[in-house]
Amino acid sequence: MLSFGERLDRVFATRGQLCLGIDPHSFLLAEWGLPDTAEGVREFGLRAVDAAAGVIGIVKPQVAFFEQHGSAGYAALEEVLAAARAAELLVIADVKRGDVGSTVAAYAAAWLTPGSPLEADAMTVAAYQGVGSLAEPVAQAMAHGKGLFVLAATSNPESVNTQTALLDRGEFEGMTVAASIVAGVDELNAADHLGSVGVVIGATVTAADYGISAGRLAYTPILAPGFGEQGALVADLPDLYAEVSGNVIANVGRSVLRAGRDGITGELARQAAELREVLAR
Amino acid sequence: MLSFGERLDRVFATRGQLCLGIDPHSFLLAEWGLPDTAEGVREFGLRAVDAAAGVIGIVKPQVAFFEQHGSAGYAALEEVLAAARAAELLVIADVKRGDVGSTVAAYAAAWLTPGSPLEADAMTVAAYQGVGSLAEPVAQAMAHGKGLFVLAATSNPESVNTQTALLDRGEFEGMTVAASIVAGVDELNAADHLGSVGVVIGATVTAADYGISAGRLAYTPILAPGFGEQGALVADLPDLYAEVSGNVIANVGRSVLRAGRDGITGELARQAAELREVLAR
Repeated sequence: MLSFGERLDRVFATRGQLCLGIDPHSFLLAEWGLPDTAEGVREFGLRAVDAAAGVIGIVKPQVAFFEQHGSAGYAALEEVLAAARAAELLVIADVKRGDVGSTVAAYAAAWLTPGSPLEADAMTVAAYQGVGSLAEPVAQAMAHGKGLFVLAATSNPESVNTQTALLDRGEFEGMTVAASIVAGVDELNAADHLGSVGVVIGATVTAADYGISAGRLAYTPILAPGFGEQGALVADLPDLYAEVSGNVIANVGRSVLRAGRDGITGELARQAAELREVLAR
Repeated sequence: MLSFGERLDRVFATRGQLCLGIDPHSFLLAEWGLPDTAEGVREFGLRAVDAAAGVIGIVKPQVAFFEQHGSAGYAALEEVLAAARAAELLVIADVKRGDVGSTVAAYAAAWLTPGSPLEADAMTVAAYQGVGSLAEPVAQAMAHGKGLFVLAATSNPESVNTQTALLDRGEFEGMTVAASIVAGVDELNAADHLGSVGVVIGATVTAADYGISAGRLAYTPILAPGFGEQGALVADLPDLYAEVSGNVIANVGRSVLRAGRDGITGELARQAAELREVLAR
């Protein structure tokens, strides 16, 4: 069995580093002529998967938009996840779950267990309760060739004060909260190839402001939202992430989805080619 | 329309401050002779609601255990939530959701919209992305008479280093992360009665270690896990929370659920009476 890090490495080599966020916002559903119902988000998700298949290698469904429709929304999501995995897309479930003990273990089981109805390849998680609270999800990810992405430095301005707070005790005393999460994750990853536990660092944040050093990211996959309508340019990725650019999953959402159901494939191909070109320089 | 804070006040006065966590752990399902399936968690949840109805005033379903079973688990949860609300129990969906902008708005819409399939009376949220990231859930809660509980100081030991980190900038510079969340929440609540935005402060933590002052909690509901098998005693609540004891929702889970499906009502009544007595002293 390959680890998630190894699978990600292969996808990067064959399909590139672009990821499509599957975000059925109300306004996008309206633009696509779909209702804001479980049936609408299902249709939206399946079309986004079709558009991405064969063009890029990674998709990231935003689970909140499915959850809004209750169990029917989850049934729609199950179809979207299955279609994406059948199309050999690597699927990151953007759920930002977090808890402790047997509860966070249940969340991990929901998304990372082979054969479970909501099986994905990786999930996003929050570590407000400490990186140590994620021990169970980490163990499950390792056991099943799955991945995790832990929120570290996010792109919304309201997050800065919390994420730059300085640890006053423990192994990472003196580091910012964000840097301590990056360091905690670094310790979980192997030291000679891309690991299976990643972090989320928004494309519009400056990692140095958080005291995050590139050395602590050497083997860590980085999920980077913030490209496109949130302000960062795919062409700037090598400048933004410097020596760890090769570890970055560049997520694009609205800037592609607004191209409409018939325009997505073309826009994805264009952005994927652009990203490949700037990374090859 | 009454606010959530006002509704909580009434429940405290008529039914007391005890809350039953509806946590269908695998080992409990086995003890109750139920399968670890969507049907098993549905049955467990409905029986827990029956046992609580008329005896206490608040229940807290742990959503992770339902999510584990995918859309079928969510369909089971919908039934449990509806049964609890029909039995006039105040329902806190323990989901610990957190995100930004339209995404966190979708999570709030899922749980706090009147008539939505997953409607609850309140939900737990995480503010790793800043209390400001919760503006949309707060607005929705206020509009619909619903409530939120923001994680502040949780009872798991791995959380201490993050939650005691010291803010280096902003309005709450110098405070711990946990205290800054308590202060941010305090600003959202009214200044003359119990507010609708609460915090989670575990019963096994010492608030003073986090620099959390009672003054900042005067009008804030406090959801307190950690009683029973996690180590704190209901009888000690007045000592643990001192002058804000009247704001505390004391959550009990395993210590009651282990009494088995026929023993829960008796055990809940016993603990509720004990809590009422120590609070009246």
